Formats: sequence, structure tokens, C-alpha cells
Amino acid sequence: MTIEPLLPLTNHLPEPDMALAERIFAELRERTVDGPGVTREAYGRGEQIAHEMLSREAGLLGLETSVDAGGNMLVTLPGREPDGKRVLMGSHLDSVPVGGNFDGAAGVLAGLAVLAGWCNAGMRPRRDVSVIAIRAEESNWFPYSYVGSKSALGRLPADALEVRRSDTGRTLREHMVDLGLDPDQVAAGVPQLRPEDLAAYVELHIEQGPVLIGADVPASLVTGIRGSFRYREMKVLGEYAHSGAVPMAWRHDAVVAASQLVVFIQQEWERMEAEGHDMTATVGIMSTDPSQHAFSKISGEVSMSIDIRSHDTATLDEMKRRLHIALDRIAEERGARFETGPLTASAPAVMDAHLIEVFGKAMRDLGLPHYAMASGAGHDAAVFAGAGVPTLMLFVRNQNGSHNPDEAMEMEDFHHSVRLLGAGIRALAEEPEGARA
Amino acid sequence: MTIEPLLPLTNHLPEPDMALAERIFAELRERTVDGPGVTREAYGRGEQIAHEMLSREAGLLGLETSVDAGGNMLVTLPGREPDGKRVLMGSHLDSVPVGGNFDGAAGVLAGLAVLAGWCNAGMRPRRDVSVIAIRAEESNWFPYSYVGSKSALGRLPADALEVRRSDTGRTLREHMVDLGLDPDQVAAGVPQLRPEDLAAYVELHIEQGPVLIGADVPASLVTGIRGSFRYREMKVLGEYAHSGAVPMAWRHDAVVAASQLVVFIQQEWERMEAEGHDMTATVGIMSTDPSQHAFSKISGEVSMSIDIRSHDTATLDEMKRRLHIALDRIAEERGARFETGPLTASAPAVMDAHLIEVFGKAMRDLGLPHYAMASGAGHDAAVFAGAGVPTLMLFVRNQNGSHNPDEAMEMEDFHHSVRLLGAGIRALAEEPEGARA
Repeated sequence: MTIEPLLPLTNHLPEPDMALAERIFAELRERTVDGPGVTREAYGRGEQIAHEMLSREAGLLGLETSVDAGGNMLVTLPGREPDGKRVLMGSHLDSVPVGGNFDGAAGVLAGLAVLAGWCNAGMRPRRDVSVIAIRAEESNWFPYSYVGSKSALGRLPADALEVRRSDTGRTLREHMVDLGLDPDQVAAGVPQLRPEDLAAYVELHIEQGPVLIGADVPASLVTGIRGSFRYREMKVLGEYAHSGAVPMAWRHDAVVAASQLVVFIQQEWERMEAEGHDMTATVGIMSTDPSQHAFSKISGEVSMSIDIRSHDTATLDEMKRRLHIALDRIAEERGARFETGPLTASAPAVMDAHLIEVFGKAMRDLGLPHYAMASGAGHDAAVFAGAGVPTLMLFVRNQNGSHNPDEAMEMEDFHHSVRLLGAGIRALAEEPEGARA
Repeated sequence: MTIEPLLPLTNHLPEPDMALAERIFAELRERTVDGPGVTREAYGRGEQIAHEMLSREAGLLGLETSVDAGGNMLVTLPGREPDGKRVLMGSHLDSVPVGGNFDGAAGVLAGLAVLAGWCNAGMRPRRDVSVIAIRAEESNWFPYSYVGSKSALGRLPADALEVRRSDTGRTLREHMVDLGLDPDQVAAGVPQLRPEDLAAYVELHIEQGPVLIGADVPASLVTGIRGSFRYREMKVLGEYAHSGAVPMAWRHDAVVAASQLVVFIQQEWERMEAEGHDMTATVGIMSTDPSQHAFSKISGEVSMSIDIRSHDTATLDEMKRRLHIALDRIAEERGARFETGPLTASAPAVMDAHLIEVFGKAMRDLGLPHYAMASGAGHDAAVFAGAGVPTLMLFVRNQNGSHNPDEAMEMEDFHHSVRLLGAGIRALAEEPEGARA
């Protein structure tokens, strides 16, 4: 679909400061580059660089900044009626190892570009409007989902502070202390943001799949977020033995057992899609033990991860049931043993109907095709929705997926999306207190 | 089967020096221990310790020792008629990483125990009788089969010297130079042992599978050795992408492609056994890329090894044909790509009929049940057989397989086997020159 060139903004809507966003994207890439991609370790070097840049730029714009006990940063343009509920937008600033420059950062810089445009135009909203830069969204670093947003909302269980970062082996608590943060306050569950004080949380994010490319639209409303269950550290235990000397009947081959499980998961996914279920199923990690494996040894141990996602809790439950039946069958067949390790899970999240309406209208006003889709990936937005905050996500079309160095976002698509964000946030920020049914 | 207690040796056959062997086994384990097992790196620390111990013990017994250009050691009891062909026994002294104490070392210490027994009894054979300690049999270290025995026979291609050791990343040539050896002479293909000078090569080795346990016998003649073909460094190339956001049809999942291949290989093995083929098929190494993989990423790359073995060259060829058809089919189905990497192969080896007869008679003389089997594992004996040396192997019953720290050999089984080795070698050593048809 050919999108009209940018229409003139009406209703005195200030143009977002795209030059600012582009400059910060470039500096971010340069300072967190890692081989072909970028690496921004949660509660580590790369993420911290991004937070410090944001703080610096907010200061230059005259915006207020504050950092909460768990290290999330709030950049605020105070409203004309500061007693009203706050309108919040934002995303996270960490990245996966050797990831792309836009996953997370786009949502924070979009919010900053909107506020910068308003500052440039001397515009002051009715309500406080804030951009939040969230910590530790990518759970590669700490095997725990949504550390930063849960911490901000007082919903991070105390034991999560003892989880260790995958690269350093040190705990979340230790990494927080390194940065001068206050893990004890996080552990106490004191909300830094109270849901009842928030009018909305809106997260702009690159789409992490190819759907908007297929649909040929620059941006989309997101109507829901898939939940998941995961075994991140499953072990398949067989028995090491000589590859040439042990007949078939005597083998307990962990690689064959693990491979049968992968093929089962793929086939079950195909069956469940055919039955009408929404689902994704992925084994992203699979590895024999480098300190013991050899081409001439039957493998005694495989480590693997399983990640199942769906919009529908019942689908997740059904897949888990079928998976466990398969584990028992394959274990028996191969004389192997599966140790699933800890189960982590996140509930599917529903986006707010009023926000869908407000941003849908903004889409039409801006001449953008009205498009809505569900999110396959999880996001901090799911935590806000789960806490009862009216929540919406916007997706920006993105080439080459995400969580890889090749992710790409056309600046024109980003520009359309930031205008959409600004228009919707403006409408929310001007809503009188108690306007919603 | 209950084996009779050791019968008195007849025909003036000296008792092998089992106390010597047990003492060296204990010292070897102690000095090369690595966690639960032992590690004797080829052309490295552990193997070198074993060679130095052998040299020391041979010297104490008054045996002659010599080290060839490639580092193999020959321990010799000179014969009464030194112009005759030499009778050779032995095995290798390296081990896999965290392997067992007996794989390889048993054959060398068995030979030494035989010669020590003869020295103790003042017995001198007609022919020269030597024990050879071979280098680098375990190809985990250098991804090249039978470096030491090929070098001894002048059959190691010069380019093998440029192969790099898996742990150090340094070449075979560099490691040889470290030990004061002469890689240029090895490269020149000068045989240190000429096949026409050898009456026999007999290798005692632990069985690396459970067959003798199943048959309930302490030792076996080996009638043939499986050949193999291998892809040790295959790569499966897909495309990294977000696990939750990319629908099935857009995926190029390397883990699914690799797992389908493993399941195919297993099923094809079952089909070929049912068709009457002798075969083993093993994927011992399978790994996503630890620097890039994540539970939330569809995998773009898997490394794996394939090891196929058979007594029959035609079976190996047929399996290779079927494997390549499957590679094409799976690559197409998944939109993935297989890079097989280098193919290595070894031909099946046939053992010498005269030696089978001589050692079969010795088995009966010693009151051992007559038992013969094929070897699933490859051994240096295959190189000697391939060079035209009359060759035989003897297997010793062994608990818990090999190439793992739990390998175990009852000293009583070893004693039976060393006596068998001694009796057969004695018969060969006394054969007059030109006695064989």
C-alpha cells in the first residue's frame, strides 16, 4: 500500500523532533556496538550507557527526570493540572546479546521525540506526561520476565533478586547495588508507579515479525499480547558410550531423545494450528556438553529450551499437557530422562478498548491505514495491563525481525508511528479527569 | 559362563607380570586424573606422561626402547634370530577427554606384562618381539584418524601435520616439534616400520561395548573392524528470528532441521538393520551457537557431527546416498542449508586368518571359551591391516563402555586376556621364517 506523504498536522499538534531521535539512535549504536549488532546488558554497561544518554538529553530539553529504586527512569513534562492521572509511554533500553538497535530503544526515543516536539512548540498538556525507560526486559540476561516493569509496579517477587545474570553469574541484587540502586525497596514491593495514578501506558515497539511487511502498512495498533510457558533449562539425560561399539538396543542417546522432542513439538504446533489454536513453539537452545561430547561418543546429556506462546491460556494449558505426555513416551522409548527445570510463564494480555479507539481515530486523522494485530512477542505492556493500567501497544514495521543484528526500521515508518504516538498521547493528555466511562 | 580358574601354563609359557601392569595402571590413573576420569592429550601432557612411564619401566626390565620420528615408542625384547620378521603387539596411550584408564593403555601394558614375564623367566624368543605405544589414536584431539599408526607406517599425508588440536588450536606439526620429534621425516612418508618386516600386529583392547558382558565371556578374538564415514563439522544454517513473533511459514529454524536429520538417521539405521545391514549411526555433537542462541530466538545455526560405521563398504555407500537425499529434502522443507564440511572415512578391515587360528588354539589351550566377534569401533589395527600386515585384535570384557570415566575392566578378565596374548605371541615368535603358506 502506498502511504500518503506526511499530512500537515492539524489541531495544533506539534511535529515530533525526529532529528533528535535519529541522532540518539546513531550515538546509541556507536556506543553499544558489538560485532555486527549491539549489546546492552540489563543492569550492565550497554543499558547504563543508554540510560545516561536519555538523562542527558532530557536535561537539555528541560524535562524532569527521576530514577526509581529498581533503576527505571521517568522523564516527565509536567502538566497544567498536575493532580490528574499521569499519561505514560515508553519501552526498555536493554537489548539481547548482539541484537538490533531498535528493539526497545525505539519506544523510548519515540516518547522523547514527542515531548521534545511539545517543548519546542511551547506546548504544555493538561496532565503530566512521562516517558519511562524500563530496565531488563530481555530475559536473556536474567532468566526472569519483565524485571524492570514488575519492579516499577511493586510486583517483582523478592526471590527474583537472587537470579543470576547469564554472563556474569552475579545476582540481580548485586548488579542493582553496583548501580547505586535499592534492591531492598524493590524486594519490599513498594510500587514506584501506582496503577491508580496512571491514565494509560502506551508502548511503541518495532514489530518483531514480518506481518506488517506482508500487510504493507507502516504501523499497527496491537490488540493483545501472547502469553507463554517456558522451560529454559531443560536437560535430557542419557548415557555416554562409544559410537561404534554399542548396538542400538543398548543405547540411551540424549541427542536422539532431544531431537524426537523437537520434531514432536513442531508437528504438534502444526496440528494445533490446524485445530484453530493460535500458537508459536520454539526450541532456541539445544546443546550437547562441550566438555564431554565427541563425534565418537553417544551423547549422555543435552541442554535445551522450550518456548510456547499463545493468545489463549487454554491453548497453553493444552500444549503443556500434550508436551508432558510426549516427554514420558520419549523417555521410555529411549531409556533417557528429562529434567524440565523451572517453569516460567506469562499470562496473555488484553489491550484497553478506549485506547484502541483513541489511537484508531488518530490513525485516521493522520491518513494512516487503520490496521490492528496481535503481538506474538511478550512486552512490558503485558505487565502494565496485568496490573490494571489501561494499556496499548503500537507496532512499527520492521525488516528482518528482531533479536538479531539485521533488524531494520525505515525512518519514514518510524516518523509515521511517532506522529501516531504523539497524536494519541496528546488526546489522552487533554482528557479531563473522570472523562472515561 | 563360569570360567575355570587360571589353568597352569603349559609348554614352559612364563606367567605374565600382572603386578607390574596393575602398578602402572594405578600410577597412570593418578598422574593423568581429570575430574571423574583421565585425560591424556595426544601429543600433549597426559600422553607424554604415559610414554615416559613406559620408557622408564622398559629400561628397568632391560628391554630396548626407541622412539620414531612421529613419537611412537617401540619396546623390544631381541630374538635369538634377529634377521626374522618382528612380532608386534601394542595399542595407544592417549585417551579421550575425561575418558577411562584402560582404553588404549590396556594393550600396551598387556604387551609389557608379557615381555616382563619372559624377562623374569629368562626366556628369549626366536624372533624380535616388540610392544608399540602408538600416538594420537583418539581423534578428538586432532580431527584425523590414526595419526600415530599411519605415521609409523609412512602413511600419514603431509597435510595432516597442519591439522589443529581441538583444545590448543595449534597444529600437529607444532605439537610434534614441542616434543622434539621430526615432522619433516613424517611428512616425507618414510616408514619407521616396514610392513614386510612385520610377522604380525596384535592389539589387545577393552571391548568398547556390552557384547562380551552379554555373552558372559572374559575375552574374544576380533574377526574384523568396522569402517566409517564421518561429517565431524556439519553446519545447519537457518535464520535467527524472534520466537514469539514469527509465524511458522516464515521460519528457517536450524534446530528443527537438525532434529529432523537426527530422527531420519535413527529411523534409517533401524530400516537398514531390518534389511540385514551391519551399521551404527551416531550424532554425538549437536549445538546451537552459545554466542548467539537464546530461548527467545529461533536458531539460525546448529553445529553437529555424524558418524556412520559398518563392516561393509557397500552399506556405508548406501547410507551416504540416503543421507544426502534426506539433506536435500530437509533443506528444502525448512528453507535451511546444510554445509557438510569435510568428509573423513576409514575402510573396514579384515583380520588375518592364520592369526585367528593361532590365537584360537591358544584360547583352547588356556581353557577359555572360544569366542569371536567383530569390532564396532575403529582401531590402529585397521591401519596395520590396511598396510598388509597380518593383524589381529583381542577384546577384553569391559563394564560401562569406553570413552567415559566409568569404563571398568575386571583384573581377572585382563589376566585371562594377557595370558592369551602371551600364548599367541609366543607361538608366533617361535614360528620359523617362511613357515606360513
